[in-house]
Amino acid sequence: MHTELTWSDPRVAAELCEVREQRPLVQCLTNIVVAQFTANALLAVGASPAMVENAKESAEFTAVASAVLINLGTLSAEREVAMRAAATAAHDHGRPWVFDPVAVGVLGPRTVFAGELLDLHPSVVRANASEVMSLAGSEFGGRGVDSLAQSDEALGSATVLARARSCVVAVSGLVDYVTDGINVIEVPGGSALLTRITGTGCALGALVAAFVAVDDDVLFAAAAASAVFKAAGECAARNDPGTGTFGVALMDALDALTRGARPRLS
Amino acid sequence: MHTELTWSDPRVAAELCEVREQRPLVQCLTNIVVAQFTANALLAVGASPAMVENAKESAEFTAVASAVLINLGTLSAEREVAMRAAATAAHDHGRPWVFDPVAVGVLGPRTVFAGELLDLHPSVVRANASEVMSLAGSEFGGRGVDSLAQSDEALGSATVLARARSCVVAVSGLVDYVTDGINVIEVPGGSALLTRITGTGCALGALVAAFVAVDDDVLFAAAAASAVFKAAGECAARNDPGTGTFGVALMDALDALTRGARPRLS
Amino acid sequence: MHTELTWSDPRVAAELCEVREQRPLVQCLTNIVVAQFTANALLAVGASPAMVENAKESAEFTAVASAVLINLGTLSAEREVAMRAAATAAHDHGRPWVFDPVAVGVLGPRTVFAGELLDLHPSVVRANASEVMSLAGSEFGGRGVDSLAQSDEALGSATVLARARSCVVAVSGLVDYVTDGINVIEVPGGSALLTRITGTGCALGALVAAFVAVDDDVLFAAAAASAVFKAAGECAARNDPGTGTFGVALMDALDALTRGARPRLS
Repeated sequence: MHTELTWSDPRVAAELCEVREQRPLVQCLTNIVVAQFTANALLAVGASPAMVENAKESAEFTAVASAVLINLGTLSAEREVAMRAAATAAHDHGRPWVFDPVAVGVLGPRTVFAGELLDLHPSVVRANASEVMSLAGSEFGGRGVDSLAQSDEALGSATVLARARSCVVAVSGLVDYVTDGINVIEVPGGSALLTRITGTGCALGALVAAFVAVDDDVLFAAAAASAVFKAAGECAARNDPGTGTFGVALMDALDALTRGARPRLS
Repeated sequence: MHTELTWSDPRVAAELCEVREQRPLVQCLTNIVVAQFTANALLAVGASPAMVENAKESAEFTAVASAVLINLGTLSAEREVAMRAAATAAHDHGRPWVFDPVAVGVLGPRTVFAGELLDLHPSVVRANASEVMSLAGSEFGGRGVDSLAQSDEALGSATVLARARSCVVAVSGLVDYVTDGINVIEVPGGSALLTRITGTGCALGALVAAFVAVDDDVLFAAAAASAVFKAAGECAARNDPGTGTFGVALMDALDALTRGARPRLS
Repeated sequence: MHTELTWSDPRVAAELCEVREQRPLVQCLTNIVVAQFTANALLAVGASPAMVENAKESAEFTAVASAVLINLGTLSAEREVAMRAAATAAHDHGRPWVFDPVAVGVLGPRTVFAGELLDLHPSVVRANASEVMSLAGSEFGGRGVDSLAQSDEALGSATVLARARSCVVAVSGLVDYVTDGINVIEVPGGSALLTRITGTGCALGALVAAFVAVDDDVLFAAAAASAVFKAAGECAARNDPGTGTFGVALMDALDALTRGARPRLS
């Protein structure tokens, strides 16, 4: 089944309210470049971030976390150990975990490591088109951290990957596609400005973790996170701000959604 | 003796002016997630930040620093070595150092390591209520990096800890409590928004280091740093901004205090 | 020959347009404190940042990058290995690379390591006056990460260094001096606020890498990057903003230059 989801669907706001109410504790082993941005995005939607990513403590923390994000952005020797331990602990403790395989297919070592992490049962893979195509085995490379393909081109690969790994795959792009291998939810909207500042994809990965922490319907939760993020992007892009202002406005918009001043989205 | 301190006390502005004049060089071995935010907060109050936190160089730098901040936020194998070396060097060179034991009591390895650092004679321990209670041996855990207790509940533990370690303990919360084990300075005020962005506690720890660098009265200096930070938080929270705008306004407010346009605090 | 360059020279805007058109992929092994700021500065001028700085992958990525930035800000054991590999790969593949020797001369280990990297043929050394004087062997130390000398005092050292290493040396300060050892381009302007937030020098180093990626005239490209950065600083400093607002406005200004709303610089 192929459906569409946007902020205008009241179930999305309801899902966000659930996050604000439950305040899931989201452990992030993530791209350190955008870790502050990611933590602030989680706080803006009412979740509680914890950037515990060292080899000694990551698994211990996973046991008390509501969900885990593993993002390969700034891989290092110690982070690899920590990620493996956290993914294993998440699986063992039944915690959902989201995998963001930044630049997989571009670089050899992380491509091998990504395969290893896929074996540890992520609940959701959130990635751009190039990364999804690479994980699905289509040998399609990106350009650095950016995708060279559009999200719709990766829908076939996303379906293959979701079925092979029994997970949800969320492909980010002009339209986000979220699939469990059978059903597909399209999330249109957003803003081109989301590609002009660093870390928006990484922050979305963290929101997906927060949303799957409060809803067992992983497919819907992942799509709702995308819909929230795109709505915030649209709000923040009003009046065509510069990229500095846009980054600040994006946090304001995430904070404002479902709060008193709910923004009107045209 | 139990007293109260706020920005309205002219001694606080005088202390901040002293920081601006002396420009203390504050070495930060800190939570890398909020290192930029921390450095900018130090610059905003006129101090000079230096994030030297590698194992080879940390002690060498401590010898020339005015004060040191050690924050356990993003512990790693190499940072542990660097922190031990810097704390030792600070003690040997008679430099004040501030200890921010993020998430102590939540995770085993850092709880052990925090005990080891406490033996290296911090001048100030700045922490939230859960962390102070954990360090004082009350076995009270936090939830990730957040406290589950209010600051007033930790006042007894703070006093015990300050006496046992001959240091000043600053408990952050709705009201900050700063004690040397005998006297207590209460710092009320601030804004709930300070808990809705990441890194405010960490940045306050760095300000405490800057303030103790210019004043041998460690108890007063630590309380003055809290008073400055809470005043800036109040300024920044005016007009109920979104969390993105609040983060920017907080830096503006720290920058504005004791500059030409001194903000009026009601 | 001694000339002056500012944004008012149409060749500077033309160079920036070239960056926007070619979108060079700039690999940054940089100060992790300001990595997000640096990535956003690169995105604002139309370049594509990639913070690949781990030991296993840095050289592999260099082979596909347009240019490389190596900044010693937050040196670590693993980053040292990664930097050595990337600098070697850049030389082998004929990629330009920019060296930012943060705090060289202040700390022993990085001073030794900086000498080693200099042997790997950087295209440009971008540094403050103290750092340039230290690299040129004048034993002049800085204060933490800040220079104790003015940029004009380092011009002699810059010339010596440029000749000895057959590279371009860019000294940042009130006036930036860019030299290949024979010619000198002076870049005046900018704003004192650029020294009141962290990471502006580091971000400039990244812009230099983006500019030398699109122009074989390394001397001019490095000077044009300085002129763009100083122009953006002037824009952002209008109306005397607080330091928080200034950081945001700086990104907006970099984004605005050569876009529709080209800012008028007096």
